[in-house]
Amino acid sequence: MGSFAIDPDYVEKLILEMAQYGSDGGTGVSRTVYSPEWVGATRQYAKWCREAGLEAREDAVGNVWGRLPGSQGGKAIVTGSHIDTQTPGGRYDGTLGALAGIVALKVLRETYGQPRRTLECVALCEEENSRFPTAQWWGSRAVTGRTRPEDADTVQAFTGESIAEAMREVGLDPKRVEEAKRDDIEYFIELHIEQGPILEQAGLPVAVVTGVTGIRHYLVTLKGEQNHAGAFPMDLRRDPMAGFAEIASGVIDTAHRWGRPAVTTVGRVISDPNGIAVVPGSVEFSIDVRHPDPARVDALYASHERQMQEVAARRGLDLSWEILNDQPPCPSDPDILAQLKAAADTYGVPYMSMASGAGHDTQQMARIAKVAMIFVRSKDGRSHTPDEFSSIEDIVAGIKVLTETLYRLAY
Amino acid sequence: MGSFAIDPDYVEKLILEMAQYGSDGGTGVSRTVYSPEWVGATRQYAKWCREAGLEAREDAVGNVWGRLPGSQGGKAIVTGSHIDTQTPGGRYDGTLGALAGIVALKVLRETYGQPRRTLECVALCEEENSRFPTAQWWGSRAVTGRTRPEDADTVQAFTGESIAEAMREVGLDPKRVEEAKRDDIEYFIELHIEQGPILEQAGLPVAVVTGVTGIRHYLVTLKGEQNHAGAFPMDLRRDPMAGFAEIASGVIDTAHRWGRPAVTTVGRVISDPNGIAVVPGSVEFSIDVRHPDPARVDALYASHERQMQEVAARRGLDLSWEILNDQPPCPSDPDILAQLKAAADTYGVPYMSMASGAGHDTQQMARIAKVAMIFVRSKDGRSHTPDEFSSIEDIVAGIKVLTETLYRLAY
Repeated sequence: MGSFAIDPDYVEKLILEMAQYGSDGGTGVSRTVYSPEWVGATRQYAKWCREAGLEAREDAVGNVWGRLPGSQGGKAIVTGSHIDTQTPGGRYDGTLGALAGIVALKVLRETYGQPRRTLECVALCEEENSRFPTAQWWGSRAVTGRTRPEDADTVQAFTGESIAEAMREVGLDPKRVEEAKRDDIEYFIELHIEQGPILEQAGLPVAVVTGVTGIRHYLVTLKGEQNHAGAFPMDLRRDPMAGFAEIASGVIDTAHRWGRPAVTTVGRVISDPNGIAVVPGSVEFSIDVRHPDPARVDALYASHERQMQEVAARRGLDLSWEILNDQPPCPSDPDILAQLKAAADTYGVPYMSMASGAGHDTQQMARIAKVAMIFVRSKDGRSHTPDEFSSIEDIVAGIKVLTETLYRLAY
Repeated sequence: MGSFAIDPDYVEKLILEMAQYGSDGGTGVSRTVYSPEWVGATRQYAKWCREAGLEAREDAVGNVWGRLPGSQGGKAIVTGSHIDTQTPGGRYDGTLGALAGIVALKVLRETYGQPRRTLECVALCEEENSRFPTAQWWGSRAVTGRTRPEDADTVQAFTGESIAEAMREVGLDPKRVEEAKRDDIEYFIELHIEQGPILEQAGLPVAVVTGVTGIRHYLVTLKGEQNHAGAFPMDLRRDPMAGFAEIASGVIDTAHRWGRPAVTTVGRVISDPNGIAVVPGSVEFSIDVRHPDPARVDALYASHERQMQEVAARRGLDLSWEILNDQPPCPSDPDILAQLKAAADTYGVPYMSMASGAGHDTQQMARIAKVAMIFVRSKDGRSHTPDEFSSIEDIVAGIKVLTETLYRLAY
């Protein structure tokens, strides 16, 4: 049996008070990186860190770190997640993991005193791309040393301003982004809501995440011949909508037949000229393909590419694609996984293992640290919406697993 | 052998000079109803009518009529088409039929003198919906008595103004639209470019049109559940894009299997929220279905509706649709068809019979008159583009058939 206790009232207080920064009607939160709401949230995060007995600091891109120095020094053990949201998102996606870090470090310090190894919690500045569509993990990417000052001028907001301008407005110097780099982190553990319905269906509060899925985003263009919908016979058409429909059906059905955890999504489609009485001249569409198994993900990509090529050739359509995003699968560290499971057993928290089908800061941190994640059950599997919800009981169960794991690694 | 001659130079002069009103770069023409370019074109049309010895007048909606009174009086025999264009369209769609009327009446008057029956040519004011998307045959519909003054306030341009405002700007009184009604037309014959590749493929200049297709436009909404593209397993999704793709493939393949002249087109699709990494919450799309045979068109509609219902039910999607446009097939008058064929034979014009897969003013005029159409070969089957082209030889062949038919009916 464990010997610390997580206070559910304290957890709920942090969640509700943090949700005021960017509160967007009811349970909605709109808090984009470097906005006034975000500034308020990061100041509040630093204040709570200090109140919990941690050293607080903001780094060169605006990540906020709380530190509990270990007696031995050496590389740090870090937990956290991002503090920005969708517009609107909810109270839990990202934020919960940043807050869980404060709760865990506070209770560890109060229960066990100074650790042997240094512990840190972090509120990462940006993960959602909700203000800057190409920011691409601006917070955690900077920690791994893969942002450059010139990137800050080219990353542009939906509303036109550069991320460099936005940084200067909140007192950060975009020329100094490289100073956010860390090379002294050994472990990174991220607690996050599941964002899917698997735990809810299984009736379990918590999952130990075996890895983050590999993701590829294709942006595909099929070109045919624009024609009059009435006067041009079916047998003479080169109709890119017919080709698109066949490809979309094919790739979606392929992932379905592969079964969990393969997923393929066609979310975006643009028909040109998009008229009711016109055979389109071109159709552009996206394919989002994900699989967490490094041994299988390439076969799934290849299967989709073969289907596109076969359909386009048979229908006389011109096919081209760009790959907008290509993240390899990111398996969790086996040692942390073992500790997470042991921690869950110690506190009697029922759990299952699963892969994450969503991308996370953890994938970035894996470039410089050993990583793993903890998922907490999401009501109806919802995220990126004001409707996202996880119960305080489930959240406390997840924080117990996190805290005990940090204890095992740091004390 | 016939005894009149069509002057190709005069035909070409009318086409090229008319194309100056709204000339939009190269061979493009942008001439929307009640625009300054349209005003110029209608004045030019009236002037040419007078020069051809016809009585010219503009009616209450801006259709311009040229009249060659018959010695017997009685109901009129009318030929013509619309004078507005797409933005940009070309020089031929619509305009060619309006000009062919002047050419035919001029040569008949010069060759044979006053007819027994009254002959008229007409430039109809609006057919393309290119300025007012719900104008719906504003010109020919008014002639049939089916526009009301209050319609002029509700029909709105893409840029916001009402068609009543546009009418007042060119000196027409929208309160008087009902005065355009005619009940003294016995025959209406429309010459038009084919807008498809069938004549070109057959190597023929002209077609006798057996009827205008029945057309139905469905605007369909499929609603499912918006979810995260990574975290939500395939087997739990209610994905409207998967349903859309299956339906689009199904209805397009059905029309293809039916063979000519059945056509089904999915031209428009809107995914919401149209994100790459989001299973859409809803997909809206159009289906344009056409068949000229009154006995078969309803079976084609029913087949598409059954497919939509089956897919939606099987995939747990909410299905709804509106019918935006529903035109029954409009068979040509058998007596006019016989005269058209005899006329082609008289002048040695090779022709074929075909149905029109495009909608035309003729469908409207069929409510008050016996109707038929003549098609002229279109290069590459193109229309609604600056690229549309028909050769003067083919056009003269079509005008010969028109002129001889009018001669047979009116003299």
